[in-house]
Amino acid sequence: MPDSAILLIHCPDRKGIVAGVSGFLHRHGANILHADQHQDNGLGLFFMRMEWDLKEFALDDAAFRAEFHPLAQSFEMQWQLAYSAARPAVAIFVSQQQHCLMDLLFRHRIGELRCEIPLIVSNHEAARDLAAFYGAPFHYTPADAANRAESEKVQLELLERHKIDLVVLARYMQILSPEFVASHPGRIINVHHSFLPAFSGARPYHAAYHRGVKLIGATSHYVTAILDDGPIIEQGVVRVSHRDQLEDLIQKGRDLERVVLSTAVRWHLDHRILQYSGKTVVFD
Amino acid sequence: MPDSAILLIHCPDRKGIVAGVSGFLHRHGANILHADQHQDNGLGLFFMRMEWDLKEFALDDAAFRAEFHPLAQSFEMQWQLAYSAARPAVAIFVSQQQHCLMDLLFRHRIGELRCEIPLIVSNHEAARDLAAFYGAPFHYTPADAANRAESEKVQLELLERHKIDLVVLARYMQILSPEFVASHPGRIINVHHSFLPAFSGARPYHAAYHRGVKLIGATSHYVTAILDDGPIIEQGVVRVSHRDQLEDLIQKGRDLERVVLSTAVRWHLDHRILQYSGKTVVFD
Amino acid sequence: MPDSAILLIHCPDRKGIVAGVSGFLHRHGANILHADQHQDNGLGLFFMRMEWDLKEFALDDAAFRAEFHPLAQSFEMQWQLAYSAARPAVAIFVSQQQHCLMDLLFRHRIGELRCEIPLIVSNHEAARDLAAFYGAPFHYTPADAANRAESEKVQLELLERHKIDLVVLARYMQILSPEFVASHPGRIINVHHSFLPAFSGARPYHAAYHRGVKLIGATSHYVTAILDDGPIIEQGVVRVSHRDQLEDLIQKGRDLERVVLSTAVRWHLDHRILQYSGKTVVFD
Amino acid sequence: MPDSAILLIHCPDRKGIVAGVSGFLHRHGANILHADQHQDNGLGLFFMRMEWDLKEFALDDAAFRAEFHPLAQSFEMQWQLAYSAARPAVAIFVSQQQHCLMDLLFRHRIGELRCEIPLIVSNHEAARDLAAFYGAPFHYTPADAANRAESEKVQLELLERHKIDLVVLARYMQILSPEFVASHPGRIINVHHSFLPAFSGARPYHAAYHRGVKLIGATSHYVTAILDDGPIIEQGVVRVSHRDQLEDLIQKGRDLERVVLSTAVRWHLDHRILQYSGKTVVFD
Repeated sequence: MPDSAILLIHCPDRKGIVAGVSGFLHRHGANILHADQHQDNGLGLFFMRMEWDLKEFALDDAAFRAEFHPLAQSFEMQWQLAYSAARPAVAIFVSQQQHCLMDLLFRHRIGELRCEIPLIVSNHEAARDLAAFYGAPFHYTPADAANRAESEKVQLELLERHKIDLVVLARYMQILSPEFVASHPGRIINVHHSFLPAFSGARPYHAAYHRGVKLIGATSHYVTAILDDGPIIEQGVVRVSHRDQLEDLIQKGRDLERVVLSTAVRWHLDHRILQYSGKTVVFD
Repeated sequence: MPDSAILLIHCPDRKGIVAGVSGFLHRHGANILHADQHQDNGLGLFFMRMEWDLKEFALDDAAFRAEFHPLAQSFEMQWQLAYSAARPAVAIFVSQQQHCLMDLLFRHRIGELRCEIPLIVSNHEAARDLAAFYGAPFHYTPADAANRAESEKVQLELLERHKIDLVVLARYMQILSPEFVASHPGRIINVHHSFLPAFSGARPYHAAYHRGVKLIGATSHYVTAILDDGPIIEQGVVRVSHRDQLEDLIQKGRDLERVVLSTAVRWHLDHRILQYSGKTVVFD
Repeated sequence: MPDSAILLIHCPDRKGIVAGVSGFLHRHGANILHADQHQDNGLGLFFMRMEWDLKEFALDDAAFRAEFHPLAQSFEMQWQLAYSAARPAVAIFVSQQQHCLMDLLFRHRIGELRCEIPLIVSNHEAARDLAAFYGAPFHYTPADAANRAESEKVQLELLERHKIDLVVLARYMQILSPEFVASHPGRIINVHHSFLPAFSGARPYHAAYHRGVKLIGATSHYVTAILDDGPIIEQGVVRVSHRDQLEDLIQKGRDLERVVLSTAVRWHLDHRILQYSGKTVVFD
Repeated sequence: MPDSAILLIHCPDRKGIVAGVSGFLHRHGANILHADQHQDNGLGLFFMRMEWDLKEFALDDAAFRAEFHPLAQSFEMQWQLAYSAARPAVAIFVSQQQHCLMDLLFRHRIGELRCEIPLIVSNHEAARDLAAFYGAPFHYTPADAANRAESEKVQLELLERHKIDLVVLARYMQILSPEFVASHPGRIINVHHSFLPAFSGARPYHAAYHRGVKLIGATSHYVTAILDDGPIIEQGVVRVSHRDQLEDLIQKGRDLERVVLSTAVRWHLDHRILQYSGKTVVFD
């Protein structure tokens, strides 16, 4: 794949946005690789993702920001520019269950995730050897309801020191404080082991078993201050029956969790997701 | 398919049930076509479905009931006996949207549903011609929150007159009174247009759209006195994205609704479902 | 939904296409509702679908064709322009099984398919009353291997007389001659009852049953001169097990067939499909 | 879970089999945990799986074999008896791609697979460190078309030395000789990266990409002398679109492959699979 730039735009819906942006890019030599856009008609909002080849593109990062500014301002755009060659720094938080961590580390190793993973944080020692095998630095930060403030202080220092761009909660079973969440707005991804909004909160497999549902699910979402309420990125389900005991639900769920979480992380790293109004636009 | 008998059993789990029942059937000449059983270990319950060819079976209905009684009593069984040749009477209740009604009537016509349909009830006139095309008697019973008691009285008389075994709510948008539900316990099947327990209550597609879920669902379930809370029979989901507007959700949902509802009705008519503890065992 | 125009473009991939087309539309007052594009990097091809509101658009059909011509020529575009207000004429061909016909007619009635259906053609009388119920003219044209040429002559006259834009084979069990296919290139949609390319040809459910597959499928595709080989539009699958007898496969398959066929027809009528190199691009 | 015994039976369909077997087990004190049976009506065959608690069961392995023999003979049964406490020895063969190996080793570690894994065989060195991390002995056996006979000789010695019960081909890209296959009849499981029988043979993702299918699949199956033709155990599919390049198909396929392979291995180890007539019965 060629080195490319990705532009994500979010603004009020008006005539001329596509023409304006594509004309701008064309004048500076961009060869567009992907373009996708979306309107929310109810809210009158416009969303766009443009990806172009950098090879014959005339503007470096600073020049782009300077030249694009007037156009962006005239359409009241919120926008982000990113480069496919960049490797954002990702921290993975995990508790005792390691299936999501294992999956993310393996995918990273074979090139599915375009990032660095300079930090694994856990409130248990269980994942230390797995992290070591994949060469990811591991930090044990004891955490429970009692010492949360203290733990989070250490964790935030780690995030700062490693210049973390994205925090992934890979079955991390501690609730984060609103302050922690606010420190990385829209940049913390969690996996919840149900098809939200059903069975939010603790022990969703138990709840699903007792309700007698015929499908169980998993959900990846951005974390907000309200538990299990952030913008949903991806969901998956699998069929269950009366033959499935609670342990079977948990086992089947593990396969869902790792897929919906790693998919969300990959989309985020590929700059495919826009968040607005408690929802996501995912440009596939 | 041969004429067969189906025995559904539900009792405390003990040694010797399978041996007892299969020995009994064998002694009377039964050729077993299907046998399935299930234990709920947590509750210590046993469930079984046996289906056998009637051709060389020595007992008629009365004889079976007499002969089987001691065995059933010794295991404290709750049991039902049914015959594949019987054609239970089904009433379909519908409001304005006819996709589920149309689907059920078509499936009945081509032989997918082993029943008679002597009664269509609606609080609108819209479905009259569809019912007529398929030869199903149509009764208009105006129903809204105000006149519910009166309407239900008429409806219950219709059910009685037609000796209805099963009531199917095929997008019938009125809430039934607890008395109505109690008149046909475990014999009213509804379709709800969400993956319950998410988005129970009114306007689930609106709720799903605003929450930004990535899958929408539909659920068929037995009706109990508590709204949208009865034992779930079948669920289905379909993928949606930010591109799907509310109308797209409704359109995609229609395809789910008719499949989960007709599947539930077929399983019920084939005597595959046992209800217990707010859940179902579905012997497929 | 507003009255809109849809432009489908297919050309060699070059810089400036998006800028050129969106600039052109903007200059003439178009408010773009949807824009999607795709590149086939291996073949160096570019595909685009643009849909815009006609309300403030300055060009009528003739003016558009005149004004757009130079731009189209400079990029060597193949292009089609369509209008959402138009109602293409669709003919449905059917044999004895009516589940797909019934489904299409019902969807048409409730507004899911934006077309007229002035013609049902069948080599059996079975569907006559269903067609009559939905007000669609029915023509019986006896057809078998022996009299195919004669039948097709009659059928082609019917297509001509009714100015048919799209032919839908809704479980029509006769093979069309290459001449017939050539008369409506890229405008005949068929449903095949397997996940092509597995089990092409006759009796796919029998073949699937004997092979012991764990999923069965259905495929909608454009018809070409080679049997079951045309560009695939949509596919669906459903899980089966050893418990499913041949009749169960056929029953489960019916539900797939009607969904994949009606989806394909709807996408075609919404001008979402481009065909090239034996494949389809489906702009959803 | 209690220690249990599992009996798999396969015989001509006759009256009295269920009664005979369940009566036998009951007389010897068995508490049946699961019972499932199946008939192939076309072929007149009967299949059964019985699992019972060993706690109060009166017969040890030798006694069972002696006592059960007359009953088995009278019904012409082929039967196998297994114990949940046993840990069969599994060898995993792998080439360069390690996603299936990684998945199997992780599942084994967390207790999803009831077996020992005393042997990893590869024709590449790539998986050596992964095997070491999970404590599984790794053997490098160079293998290509030229030296196949020699390699297989070494491999068969390894299988013999480690008393291997099941061979799992976890993306092992060498074709096994008929002699090798015959050495472990019905005990070699492979994963093929397509929904067989579509795209059998080499490079199925390339074939799927060129055909333009809308779903890709993966299949786990027992290996027979004919390539990609053995009894299918499990299949999965995932949706693709024109946006998916070949690499995307390969990436999406990896997630399917590991699920369908590990599911097949788990079912085999749980003695849930009977093979007959080129197909499988999977008692879930």
